Amino acid sequence: MILSAGVRLRSSFLLTKSLRSSRSIPCMPQSSALRRFHRPACLRQSTTPELPAFLQTYKKAVEFPPATHDFESFLSQAEPNTQVVLHGYLGQRADLSKKLSFVRLSDPAMKHSLQVVAFAKNDAFEQLKGLNTHSPVAVRGTAQRKKQKASDTTEQAPEDMWEIALEEIHPLNDFPKELIMTPETVFAPEQRYLQLRSDAELREALAFRAEARNICKKELDEGSDRFVEIETPVLFKSTPEGAREFLVPTRRPGLAYALPQSPQQYKQILMASGIPRYYQFARCFRDEDLRADRQPEFTQLDMEMSFATGQDVMRTIEGVIRRLWSTLMKDPAPEGPFKKVSYQEVMAKYGSDKPDTRYGMEIMRIDHLLPVDLVDKISDLTEPIVEAFKLEANENDPQDTHKFISQFLESPAGAPFNSNPDGAPGVFVFNGRQPLCGLQPFGFEAAEQVEEVLDPDHGDLIILQARPRAPFSGGSTPIGDLRRAMHAYAVSTGFKPAPTGFDFMWVVDFPLFSPSSDTEPGQGGAAGISSTHHPFTAPKTAADVDMLLIDPTQAVADHYDLVVNGVELGGGSRRIHDAAVQEFILRDILKMPVERLADFSHLLDALRAGCPPHAGLALGFDRLVAVMLGKESVRDVIAFPKTGKGGDDAMVKAPSPITEQALETYHLRLRE
Amino acid sequence: MILSAGVRLRSSFLLTKSLRSSRSIPCMPQSSALRRFHRPACLRQSTTPELPAFLQTYKKAVEFPPATHDFESFLSQAEPNTQVVLHGYLGQRADLSKKLSFVRLSDPAMKHSLQVVAFAKNDAFEQLKGLNTHSPVAVRGTAQRKKQKASDTTEQAPEDMWEIALEEIHPLNDFPKELIMTPETVFAPEQRYLQLRSDAELREALAFRAEARNICKKELDEGSDRFVEIETPVLFKSTPEGAREFLVPTRRPGLAYALPQSPQQYKQILMASGIPRYYQFARCFRDEDLRADRQPEFTQLDMEMSFATGQDVMRTIEGVIRRLWSTLMKDPAPEGPFKKVSYQEVMAKYGSDKPDTRYGMEIMRIDHLLPVDLVDKISDLTEPIVEAFKLEANENDPQDTHKFISQFLESPAGAPFNSNPDGAPGVFVFNGRQPLCGLQPFGFEAAEQVEEVLDPDHGDLIILQARPRAPFSGGSTPIGDLRRAMHAYAVSTGFKPAPTGFDFMWVVDFPLFSPSSDTEPGQGGAAGISSTHHPFTAPKTAADVDMLLIDPTQAVADHYDLVVNGVELGGGSRRIHDAAVQEFILRDILKMPVERLADFSHLLDALRAGCPPHAGLALGFDRLVAVMLGKESVRDVIAFPKTGKGGDDAMVKAPSPITEQALETYHLRLRE
Repeated sequence: MILSAGVRLRSSFLLTKSLRSSRSIPCMPQSSALRRFHRPACLRQSTTPELPAFLQTYKKAVEFPPATHDFESFLSQAEPNTQVVLHGYLGQRADLSKKLSFVRLSDPAMKHSLQVVAFAKNDAFEQLKGLNTHSPVAVRGTAQRKKQKASDTTEQAPEDMWEIALEEIHPLNDFPKELIMTPETVFAPEQRYLQLRSDAELREALAFRAEARNICKKELDEGSDRFVEIETPVLFKSTPEGAREFLVPTRRPGLAYALPQSPQQYKQILMASGIPRYYQFARCFRDEDLRADRQPEFTQLDMEMSFATGQDVMRTIEGVIRRLWSTLMKDPAPEGPFKKVSYQEVMAKYGSDKPDTRYGMEIMRIDHLLPVDLVDKISDLTEPIVEAFKLEANENDPQDTHKFISQFLESPAGAPFNSNPDGAPGVFVFNGRQPLCGLQPFGFEAAEQVEEVLDPDHGDLIILQARPRAPFSGGSTPIGDLRRAMHAYAVSTGFKPAPTGFDFMWVVDFPLFSPSSDTEPGQGGAAGISSTHHPFTAPKTAADVDMLLIDPTQAVADHYDLVVNGVELGGGSRRIHDAAVQEFILRDILKMPVERLADFSHLLDALRAGCPPHAGLALGFDRLVAVMLGKESVRDVIAFPKTGKGGDDAMVKAPSPITEQALETYHLRLRE
Repeated sequence: MILSAGVRLRSSFLLTKSLRSSRSIPCMPQSSALRRFHRPACLRQSTTPELPAFLQTYKKAVEFPPATHDFESFLSQAEPNTQVVLHGYLGQRADLSKKLSFVRLSDPAMKHSLQVVAFAKNDAFEQLKGLNTHSPVAVRGTAQRKKQKASDTTEQAPEDMWEIALEEIHPLNDFPKELIMTPETVFAPEQRYLQLRSDAELREALAFRAEARNICKKELDEGSDRFVEIETPVLFKSTPEGAREFLVPTRRPGLAYALPQSPQQYKQILMASGIPRYYQFARCFRDEDLRADRQPEFTQLDMEMSFATGQDVMRTIEGVIRRLWSTLMKDPAPEGPFKKVSYQEVMAKYGSDKPDTRYGMEIMRIDHLLPVDLVDKISDLTEPIVEAFKLEANENDPQDTHKFISQFLESPAGAPFNSNPDGAPGVFVFNGRQPLCGLQPFGFEAAEQVEEVLDPDHGDLIILQARPRAPFSGGSTPIGDLRRAMHAYAVSTGFKPAPTGFDFMWVVDFPLFSPSSDTEPGQGGAAGISSTHHPFTAPKTAADVDMLLIDPTQAVADHYDLVVNGVELGGGSRRIHDAAVQEFILRDILKMPVERLADFSHLLDALRAGCPPHAGLALGFDRLVAVMLGKESVRDVIAFPKTGKGGDDAMVKAPSPITEQALETYHLRLRE
């Protein structure tokens, strides 16, 4: 590490005195000499001779002149021959002669820079030569108009019209000479401060994020609904909602807080408390393994409305999105209301509950069209469902398509699909020059029907994939994953153009419950099923309430996910606002043990106190900003993201070893 | 607990089916029948006969009509004989006859209410009679003008001009009959939702808090300095800054995050990262014992500026305070710049580093005026410092003053001062009718001098208090505590009027280091001293840099506390921006062990990379709002405060027992 080159000190030259031994003060405390009344005059005189160099340097840096202007006010108000003091960072120095040097000075935000001219007529000239590029300085000098070549008639930027004739330079700190920082330098996550300092785009992403936050706030603060921003506790308690929680041990043996997965329970209690509209940018925590789009801590725009249904919530959030887009984006603001598509429909059409709908490739079920022998070739499953989609060829050239699909299926992105235990994908290239256009394995009749359904063109790719005959569950099907991966590969290899624009949709009508294996670590129920989202989600209609008794797995949830371009921006639901129904779900449907049920008693008590119906939503704010900026990872829109696999903050080196003393404080011991 | 009266269920009547056994779907997935395609038609018909009552009730509540108006839009646009749907809470019903009832309906925010008239001509009349006060409902009815008595010529509020003739009422939930909620009812912290729902002032405090936050944001966002709101991690790491931190164990054995005491280190690293102006409403955590004005988690308005000094920070914060006061308060906005008073001066004058300066009672040192025998009577200390203050009498009646001081010194607030080991307070009532005006123990000469210095009036109280001859350290002196307690008692008993207005001041020039015993659990150094605020605080002047080598206890810090009316609203400092100096402070002054020093390596590395000078501040936001609203405790401005002594959230019952499974996940075991 280059940065470890800093000064190391010998711990010897301290003349430490104990505080108690310093006797002083014979003067009255209310006198104005008070400010230093306890510093004996004798000591004040004797500046220690052996003050080390770094303290000498620091003494000078402590007292630096305040800036007379920031760069923008200087550039808009500059007058020739006025003296100015500017703060900023030095650029690369150019020594034109032994008596003349130029250097650019960037302002503290690194948005503007000005030329500084140093002549060998004062100390500042030599001082400048001793300073490294990127070092922070205060510069005193005279503003002067830059000479312009008579031949140059192009209009100049204000930054190029002015320069500063250097008179004094105050070094404020030293940028290490051995550290190379150019726009091309790649810094490790350990050096996040250098990543930020060298990458204007990264700093601008943080400023954009702050703006986006303000616009969300404005929409919610100013709307007729009058939301109130309310902070809820971070030191919460462990309740089996679904995700693994972080615990915070206390000094009382065996007792711990838990960090909230979301402010879900507190915001529902707010609804029971007579607060009709709530929102918050809430920090949330999940002890899950790190992925590119997940962090152990993340920020969500969390909101809830009482006397409201999902319709009200969706309308409100559409307003937020529209305002964000119309204020901050070049793309047109999406018109409302956003389309609503059911879970069953997106799973059938796109094999994903958060599909990117911009590039077609819609999936169709075709097993009823296929001859049994073809199905048997495609899969070992009995009576499988067979689905198909079409990838339109680049140039109506079957050869080209063949090449693309072969490369994809050999690539790391594509190869895993070949080992699907339900059967590898069936691959067909539609070719007008071949018998049955290359669809011979279908037989004449099926080929004709498939052609009619998929309407392929010369050179198009047709993909078949089998899956077990079972209801949809979870977030995607193998053919949905294949569609997504194949399209991504096509874009990355230039076979297809990248889709543009934003296609917002609400995915609705999720099943209220899913098989337990889908969630980790689950809600601790013994029923074999868990709430698909969380156990506070309301059934959608009166018919779904009936279904709770008949077959809960068939009940539809009043849950809605906001999806754009293959990204789930957030999700929400109407909540169960009735204590008896909530208790019934926890106890009789999920079959939670009594002690876990007791964890929710505060919520049940609050609902029982005449809580009105309510619905809400949480937008993943990190992800929303990343989508707006077209960033692959939320790390690019977080100042200090966790970067290591274990959720490490590589820069500060967190998490770090617990000391024995801390363990003792919290009545804990490590297991061997 | 009244609320536990809710319905308890027998867990018997479930006809659960396993998901896998439900075979279905012979239809094409892309058909519009999809929405319910996996629900067999046979099941859909058979509504189970034994649907329990609570599910029947819930089914009705699930489908309620949307409101046609909120109350404000209704009141501003109402037309007679139009049908409206309104949502809200029922008030107390008045049955005027067997055929006529009145009930008021409050809107969801409980700000407005309207009269609803129910006639015995439809079902709604009987339904209304079955509903409890405070229950949430949706009401359909016809708007009509209320009849006004001809004699009544006073102008009416819009709420009293309209009423709703009831046609339909949808019960949305039931407020328990056995629960009594009037404006006078006092609810326990366990029922925070009822505290909030029954107390409009409490809900308004939360709305006020949100407004105050927005105004702080505006001032920082819009100012010429262009601050950027940036979120920093909550999952940080343990570093010995001063306060005890909460730990968050991870699944990697022996490793833990720590919750931040403040975003101090991250914000300094932002300064090294080329972000010139940062702020954040940051959640911070300290594992300390609960006091009225302290919570284990709290919110601070945290900010930092690079290329800046304390002057810049103080000017910025004065702008925030002025804007808050001019926008939200009746009191005049404080003029700037606020006065700056040194730590030595406030400790001498008020015996407190956060004095309430509105009520005089300034302390004066008088030991140089006193005869030795008087000093000996007052204290057993050798050559103590003796200080005095005067409490002006209520009515120039020495009798009255005598009574006041006797009662105070016998009260729980006053009695402890009598057992001060440095001597009990010396109490004198100035009485023009007594020899030497009641100051005989002073002797003739001292009495005259003391009279000259304190300028007492007939009936005034003079208090003397000795303390050891030592420099000030810590937050208050016994005489300072006595001054505060005596004044508070005088106000509470009506002996003195309560002070009004806001007197802002900056307390500056704190000692950079204090004896270690003052801080808990300290910074882990072996030097016997700790940083008074935190180890990143810069020495104030070049002379204070020199003092680091001569006698660090004499160095003055560039720290500033914002104090108003005896409350510390926040504090800040210029920071050490030089890695070598920071390392020197940690290693050679505080004598931190090497392994603790290593905890700060990220900060040292960031400073080393050419970090510019910077300064900042954190305002305790909970406390700021409490001061603005004149609340005694921050609990009154926090939605869900911790209320128990151990930092308990009484409502959700946090902290709660750690399960054996969780301990195992985090490789921990409880100590016996």
